[in-house]
Amino acid sequence: MWQVVDEVHEQPEVLSRLLTAGRPLVEQAAVRIRAAAPRFVVIAARGSSDNAARYAQYLLGAHNQLTVALATPSLFTFYHRPPALAGSLVVGISQSGHSPDIVAVVTEGRRQGALTLAITNDPTSPLARAAELVLPLLAGEERAVAATKTYTAQLFVLAMLSAALSDDPTSWDDLALLPDRVAQTLVLNRDLPEQMTPLVSVRHLAVIGRGFNYATAFEVALKLKETCLLVAEPYSSADFRHGPIALVEPGFPVVVVAPSGAVFPDVAALVEELQARRAMLAVITDDPGLSGVADIALPLPAGVPEWLSPIVAVVPGQLLAVSLAQARGLDPDAPRGLRKVTRTL
Amino acid sequence: MWQVVDEVHEQPEVLSRLLTAGRPLVEQAAVRIRAAAPRFVVIAARGSSDNAARYAQYLLGAHNQLTVALATPSLFTFYHRPPALAGSLVVGISQSGHSPDIVAVVTEGRRQGALTLAITNDPTSPLARAAELVLPLLAGEERAVAATKTYTAQLFVLAMLSAALSDDPTSWDDLALLPDRVAQTLVLNRDLPEQMTPLVSVRHLAVIGRGFNYATAFEVALKLKETCLLVAEPYSSADFRHGPIALVEPGFPVVVVAPSGAVFPDVAALVEELQARRAMLAVITDDPGLSGVADIALPLPAGVPEWLSPIVAVVPGQLLAVSLAQARGLDPDAPRGLRKVTRTL
Repeated sequence: MWQVVDEVHEQPEVLSRLLTAGRPLVEQAAVRIRAAAPRFVVIAARGSSDNAARYAQYLLGAHNQLTVALATPSLFTFYHRPPALAGSLVVGISQSGHSPDIVAVVTEGRRQGALTLAITNDPTSPLARAAELVLPLLAGEERAVAATKTYTAQLFVLAMLSAALSDDPTSWDDLALLPDRVAQTLVLNRDLPEQMTPLVSVRHLAVIGRGFNYATAFEVALKLKETCLLVAEPYSSADFRHGPIALVEPGFPVVVVAPSGAVFPDVAALVEELQARRAMLAVITDDPGLSGVADIALPLPAGVPEWLSPIVAVVPGQLLAVSLAQARGLDPDAPRGLRKVTRTL
Repeated sequence: MWQVVDEVHEQPEVLSRLLTAGRPLVEQAAVRIRAAAPRFVVIAARGSSDNAARYAQYLLGAHNQLTVALATPSLFTFYHRPPALAGSLVVGISQSGHSPDIVAVVTEGRRQGALTLAITNDPTSPLARAAELVLPLLAGEERAVAATKTYTAQLFVLAMLSAALSDDPTSWDDLALLPDRVAQTLVLNRDLPEQMTPLVSVRHLAVIGRGFNYATAFEVALKLKETCLLVAEPYSSADFRHGPIALVEPGFPVVVVAPSGAVFPDVAALVEELQARRAMLAVITDDPGLSGVADIALPLPAGVPEWLSPIVAVVPGQLLAVSLAQARGLDPDAPRGLRKVTRTL
């Protein structure tokens, strides 16, 4: 069996563990953050963790009225001209906690007097040591190169933190549903490996998502790149209309992330435009109508609030990447030319 | 002749006009911004304008110590839950000034009491009317769908604004060189159309840039997508190492943006890794050594400071997109399925 498949299936258990063992830590961090009352948030991250940061942009913006900037690490490492961070919350997100550029941003934030937070699977890592507050992912060792359980754990920690900051008990009720909804998603998509024929020889595709699921589009595209050696590019439905839609000719493959919610009509309208151009559509959705028009349907369970939908919506994308890698004769555990820990400046 | 080719060649003239007619407006805006002393900057933009915003992240961070967040317009339009913007500078960048989502961010910023600035080619547009401060691009009408002269004008206005905010006279000396350097770049790359053979049948490529030229990688990729119907994906050299490098097999085409400067060694090191994987390399650089290893060399003139290099480095990318479109039998003025003004929410 593949390691990554095991790790994908561990996700409900990781989320359950975070709900119980992780919650007190999240509540403590929230108390410190509320006391600091940051004017804005800066998040440093790379790869899958950067996609978790993208989720935080929408989540902390919509639910906590916080403007989130994604850090530009080269200002800290190559240019040695970091921006002013005082009065902000500086967050580093990294599975390994070892990438020097991410550590550099958090270190500089702390030097400038900003409150600093590390979200990492290794609470003894340099990133964890650099930050004042640490939230561990409690995901257990992740062996596959492609991050799966640590990505959903990052989203879940961010969602718990947002709930703790807004102190809204209904948010915690929503969060408690998630381990089960992720487990349901795994069951709903168990026949996916049998549906890979239309994609087995494609070389490139686009992945569309919007709002909370803009992050999901990025993460699904990254999984497809890492494991399937596909040129998979993520877009918001709005950005796609501002240029790249020109690429779509009959048979052009597009993965659409379209769970119910406020942006659903916009994404569904783009699906209609893509149908008119006769694109090949793989659609991650809980909407039966949209599933009906898909060439490959990747169903989601009903009843997941939009703000938490990225945690379930990425799961069919992970399964798609693994299934497609196998169908293409690739080893999904060991993508060509990648190591588990990437140290960049 | 193609409209877009004319507009690419108008760029030195547009920059000269901004240096003279635009400077007083920029200086006035800078006085207002300095008085407001924003804690952070939020920029809303789409398409090429969003790439100008990406440049502003590095520029205002490195030269003006400002943290820049790229806005997430759907929080304003679909979710109706905008983040707190008081104490910030909210900037909308749009050639047309007509995209409702960009106008919505600026309108909300003004409602919350933030200082607001529009950078647009149409000073009578809804965006210009929504903002307190307006900086016009003075680029003349842009007829080709693919933005070229308005993109470099946006970068130049941002660079002038940064210089005015830091009140550094040497910055203005640097700025004064630019019209000439862009004109030189056009001459240096005039034989580019004869070098298109290795790229004429490729379907996808990656575009790499870092630091100030991260924006250039995005903009060159967007031009290639719009005009050549290529799946062209932009990356920083760091992000590329965190996953997508797995895609590179012999002959995989990569465009590298590598002008001299602080990040040059990092990008040059990636070029070595790409050579080891036998990628097909098109390199935009002023470094003769790097030009020497390129399959297609896109030379830049010497003597452009790194902070202004994006304004010259994009020009060979524009010419590449136009030349390749022609070589592929496409009309570079009228990309399939795009309109000049895209109205998204």
